[in-house]
Amino acid sequence: MVINKPYLLFLGDAPDQLAAKTAQGVAHWCRADCLGQLRLAGCHADAGLPDLTVAEAAGIGARTLIVGIANRGGHLSRSWLPALRRALEMGMDIASGLHHRLTDLPELAEVAARCGRQLIDVRHPTGAFDVASGRKRTGNRLLTVGTDCSVGKMYTTLALVQAMKDRGLNVTFRATGQTGILIAGSGVCIDAVVADFISGAVEALSPDNETDHWDVIEGQGSLFHPSFAGVSLGLLHGAQPDALVLCHQPNRPHMRGAPGFDLPRLEDCIAANEAAARLTNPDATCIGISLNTADLPDAEARQALHETEARLGLPCVDAVRTGVTPLVARLAG
Amino acid sequence: MVINKPYLLFLGDAPDQLAAKTAQGVAHWCRADCLGQLRLAGCHADAGLPDLTVAEAAGIGARTLIVGIANRGGHLSRSWLPALRRALEMGMDIASGLHHRLTDLPELAEVAARCGRQLIDVRHPTGAFDVASGRKRTGNRLLTVGTDCSVGKMYTTLALVQAMKDRGLNVTFRATGQTGILIAGSGVCIDAVVADFISGAVEALSPDNETDHWDVIEGQGSLFHPSFAGVSLGLLHGAQPDALVLCHQPNRPHMRGAPGFDLPRLEDCIAANEAAARLTNPDATCIGISLNTADLPDAEARQALHETEARLGLPCVDAVRTGVTPLVARLAG
Repeated sequence: MVINKPYLLFLGDAPDQLAAKTAQGVAHWCRADCLGQLRLAGCHADAGLPDLTVAEAAGIGARTLIVGIANRGGHLSRSWLPALRRALEMGMDIASGLHHRLTDLPELAEVAARCGRQLIDVRHPTGAFDVASGRKRTGNRLLTVGTDCSVGKMYTTLALVQAMKDRGLNVTFRATGQTGILIAGSGVCIDAVVADFISGAVEALSPDNETDHWDVIEGQGSLFHPSFAGVSLGLLHGAQPDALVLCHQPNRPHMRGAPGFDLPRLEDCIAANEAAARLTNPDATCIGISLNTADLPDAEARQALHETEARLGLPCVDAVRTGVTPLVARLAG
Repeated sequence: MVINKPYLLFLGDAPDQLAAKTAQGVAHWCRADCLGQLRLAGCHADAGLPDLTVAEAAGIGARTLIVGIANRGGHLSRSWLPALRRALEMGMDIASGLHHRLTDLPELAEVAARCGRQLIDVRHPTGAFDVASGRKRTGNRLLTVGTDCSVGKMYTTLALVQAMKDRGLNVTFRATGQTGILIAGSGVCIDAVVADFISGAVEALSPDNETDHWDVIEGQGSLFHPSFAGVSLGLLHGAQPDALVLCHQPNRPHMRGAPGFDLPRLEDCIAANEAAARLTNPDATCIGISLNTADLPDAEARQALHETEARLGLPCVDAVRTGVTPLVARLAG
């Protein structure tokens, strides 16, 4: 599955910025691939791109309309249909990270078939995967792991990719979630794969490569999350990471969506991830920590970074506040 | 999903006993629910049941024909179709544990719809599951875990259920694989669930229950298998087991299907399973070991059981050779 660039980002009638966070992520991380945004009446989000009509976007070469909006339940709103139909009719594909499928809407499926366009539901992998072999692959791999869900793994992964490129390293971003896939233009939504094939799908996502090449793989969930740890472990085994970066948000009251479940200690989380990863790569090592300190004042954030670094003896960054250079130095050194 | 009993076991043209091992398992563990077997020309398997035609089976009340044969690739053979059609026409449902779906065969789907019968593909869960909550449930749970795949987890689980019933305990078998589901008449094929819902499906399979009740849950895979550990971890977290029984086959050269991967030490496997299980049940404890010594002479088998028991300080049984009484004594005590 490959999503053709450049993009028109569809923000629909998003009532606020949060409802369009997929579009924000795509606009932030692949700005050069985004020709503009399409907003309907009532839209209160803004991805900071030129406003374009479908016809204008098609006229300057947009190849895919990205549904960059999420509502409760992940439904496609019927009010979006005229714009989506028009995009198909003007020669664009449509890609969506919503839970409900574009292909389940007969109105869109019929138009797409007639116009020879693709409807791409990135949350629903269509490929058939093999069961993982465990065979060690050539090239190098880094995987972000987390103490919890939604602590900044995708952001950290993309920041690492950018910093490694800036340093001249041979690197590819490997996306495992819907926003990451829209940014990369390809990938596998790993939590939507049939359970037997979690590790196999990651092996396919990150195949043999040149000896100096790095695949930088977006992590999902946490080994310590009571709902999703199976996904995280299968991803860890399939990735065969040489390097792990642990992502964490310091002041969470409990595991996301699971009151009563405390976040693990960073030491325990590193030990558990390294131990599990060494099943498929005996050299797997945590090379540093990425703290998401977004909701701390600067002084407290700096202190948290400093204390964590001193306590664990590993470089500790905030991908937004400090950048990830100290982590990349570990890889390049 | 509930599979109506009693059954007619379909052995088709199975060339040998191994090809009909699903039927063997069903005949062994729910003999009273099996009215007979149906064998086509060329069949060299025998489940030890009376041979019946479809009409004879229907006449004595068979409600479901069980496809109890597997061929390479898990396909439905076209030579089976006349018998399967006839079963539908005579009022039976059909249940299959094959990889390929009954419902994908238009000839069968059409007849089933016309006759108002069910086609049940037990490998393909049809229910929508919630994400796991991690909420502790009432009642007690035992889960079998393994050093590897195919070491005797289903057999051990069913032997435990039988021995617990014989002792008068309040117990239910919970099936997580295709043969187990056909035996139980319900269950979830856990390795076929979408990855996000592994633990949630197990929570649904084993709901709140009476305080003296035991769910005895069939394990899958191994935390140490490079292909399937994600399934095993999600199952472990969703099961919230009070008691674990570790299943092992002593003389395997390497992990099944994964040359180069050694089997874990029993001590390490117990420690890893207990540590992971305690995320959702802090009291989770391994209460004993089930060795599959089928391919050892009796004296060597007894020695292996004795040595393992002495080394680990836990009761060690072979579910076939010695029975599981010492394990049940631990639960009832």
